[in-house]
Amino acid sequence: MQIFQLGDILPMLEDKAGILAAVKHGFISHARGEIDLPNPMQILFERADKSLRADCHVKAASSAAMPYFCIKVASGFYDNPKLGLPVNNGCVLLFSSETGLPLALFQDEGHMTSVRTAAAGALSAQLAGGDRPKRLGIIGTGHQAELQALWIASTMDISEVCLWGRSKDKARALAARLASHGCPAQIAPSVATLSAQSDILVTTTPSTAPILKNEHVRDDQHIIAMGADSPGKQELDPQILARADAIIVDDFAQCTAHGELGWATRAGLVGQDKTIPLGEALARNESPVSGDDISLVDLTGLGAQDLALAAFVYENLITSKP
Amino acid sequence: MQIFQLGDILPMLEDKAGILAAVKHGFISHARGEIDLPNPMQILFERADKSLRADCHVKAASSAAMPYFCIKVASGFYDNPKLGLPVNNGCVLLFSSETGLPLALFQDEGHMTSVRTAAAGALSAQLAGGDRPKRLGIIGTGHQAELQALWIASTMDISEVCLWGRSKDKARALAARLASHGCPAQIAPSVATLSAQSDILVTTTPSTAPILKNEHVRDDQHIIAMGADSPGKQELDPQILARADAIIVDDFAQCTAHGELGWATRAGLVGQDKTIPLGEALARNESPVSGDDISLVDLTGLGAQDLALAAFVYENLITSKP
Repeated sequence: MQIFQLGDILPMLEDKAGILAAVKHGFISHARGEIDLPNPMQILFERADKSLRADCHVKAASSAAMPYFCIKVASGFYDNPKLGLPVNNGCVLLFSSETGLPLALFQDEGHMTSVRTAAAGALSAQLAGGDRPKRLGIIGTGHQAELQALWIASTMDISEVCLWGRSKDKARALAARLASHGCPAQIAPSVATLSAQSDILVTTTPSTAPILKNEHVRDDQHIIAMGADSPGKQELDPQILARADAIIVDDFAQCTAHGELGWATRAGLVGQDKTIPLGEALARNESPVSGDDISLVDLTGLGAQDLALAAFVYENLITSKP
Repeated sequence: MQIFQLGDILPMLEDKAGILAAVKHGFISHARGEIDLPNPMQILFERADKSLRADCHVKAASSAAMPYFCIKVASGFYDNPKLGLPVNNGCVLLFSSETGLPLALFQDEGHMTSVRTAAAGALSAQLAGGDRPKRLGIIGTGHQAELQALWIASTMDISEVCLWGRSKDKARALAARLASHGCPAQIAPSVATLSAQSDILVTTTPSTAPILKNEHVRDDQHIIAMGADSPGKQELDPQILARADAIIVDDFAQCTAHGELGWATRAGLVGQDKTIPLGEALARNESPVSGDDISLVDLTGLGAQDLALAAFVYENLITSKP
């Protein structure tokens, strides 16, 4: 079993084109039914005095078409900053699917999860219909908001980036970080303003109640919602899903269980007939959504992405060794 | 994150008394509702041509009473011996449940799973009612059959060990291995003969159909069934559960889902009222079962055991370091 440290892994995560191709292939394989995705495991940290705010997800995937299977651990301990520690952590394990032998431990500290999510957002953004330069809006000011701006702006034709967050300080800090990466961004005074000027709108917050209201949404907008990754989380007014012309889902079952889609299906607003698997949309030569419509991508995060990225990183690491 | 090799771990697995105490405490904590056990994850390896016989389980546990949480991977690739590789493999991860920081990777190659299962069998055997020396019978000839004989015979008053397996060669090989460990064992010619002379009977096979028939079972027998750990596996005639005076379960939900209990409940033969949680039985000063009755322990394997053993090994390793 090879042990890879974060310092080994980070350079591999710079290859956006390679990662986009690998993750896209993972989504397409999943849509074709070639990947076994067990139900994600959620580890709880319940304290009688509610003194701990934390979650940990385990996701796994195997594919008959790949010689690996992957088990990924990603944790969020939300009071860690008080201790001077990052919120996110975790690691990724890769095994041979021919013998079960453990091949690699990636001590990625959550970075591989962040990057495969960034890749999913960028692939989703590329589905936006129409061929004019796009204005990108981002709701959220965390690490994933930063990655979304950088990945989307550097891999497609974006005319401007604008962002909004509950905390003005965090929004300013994010804008400064983006500027330092050569990606200038404006700060919108409200969600309504942000949405009005965004052709592509990404929501990436830990919200448990709708931030984006139905009245904010234009009739020609491409929305990518990625904050809802476990039960109770919600960023969108479910009426947006009722109104959308197309809903693209990374996985119908997961999105129904704990994505934005779940809020809409439980309210009886939307059925499966309106949804398109993301992998199916990515496999087409043309985007299945029009630039004149409302299209929505619901991302909950799949073990298939973890497997695709872990295999990509592993193969690059073992071939790049001297 | 500390990386421990098998060579670091194996010496820690020699301390049977320490491990029995730790795993017993894990079962008791679980019975008290102190441990969060997410549903185990099963990774499938489906090939259209059925060319691969393999399974991989992921189990996890966290406890508000412990500073750790554990994620355990255990695989079985049943054609590995043809490649000169062992069937079982895997690894164990331990994390801080206060910060999520990864603390340790145990490259245990499946040995920690084997040993926590051995400990569960030995703790279950100690529940056998009556105070006469016991005769131990074992159905199965694999690695876990060997561990059951050694752990039970060395931690309680056993008068003789007898075993049976479908393969006479494997039975002879197991008897020779046991003799070399100072634990002589007879080989029974049939399950009927083995059962007739066993006060405690352990079944530890990968069977998918009953091996132990109702007519084999004496009216005063303590049976420990541990082979059924995933859907489709079965070692006991469900009528044995209907006839048993007490059924002890490591976890009611898991035993109903894929243990021997599941076959009996799905047939409408047994209800929850007849079952006792193993941790509750272990917490009592006296065994809840009588030496004159049929008692049955259904073991499916819990993340709580993995957590207990991983914490035990970790604490011993970090304190034993020079």
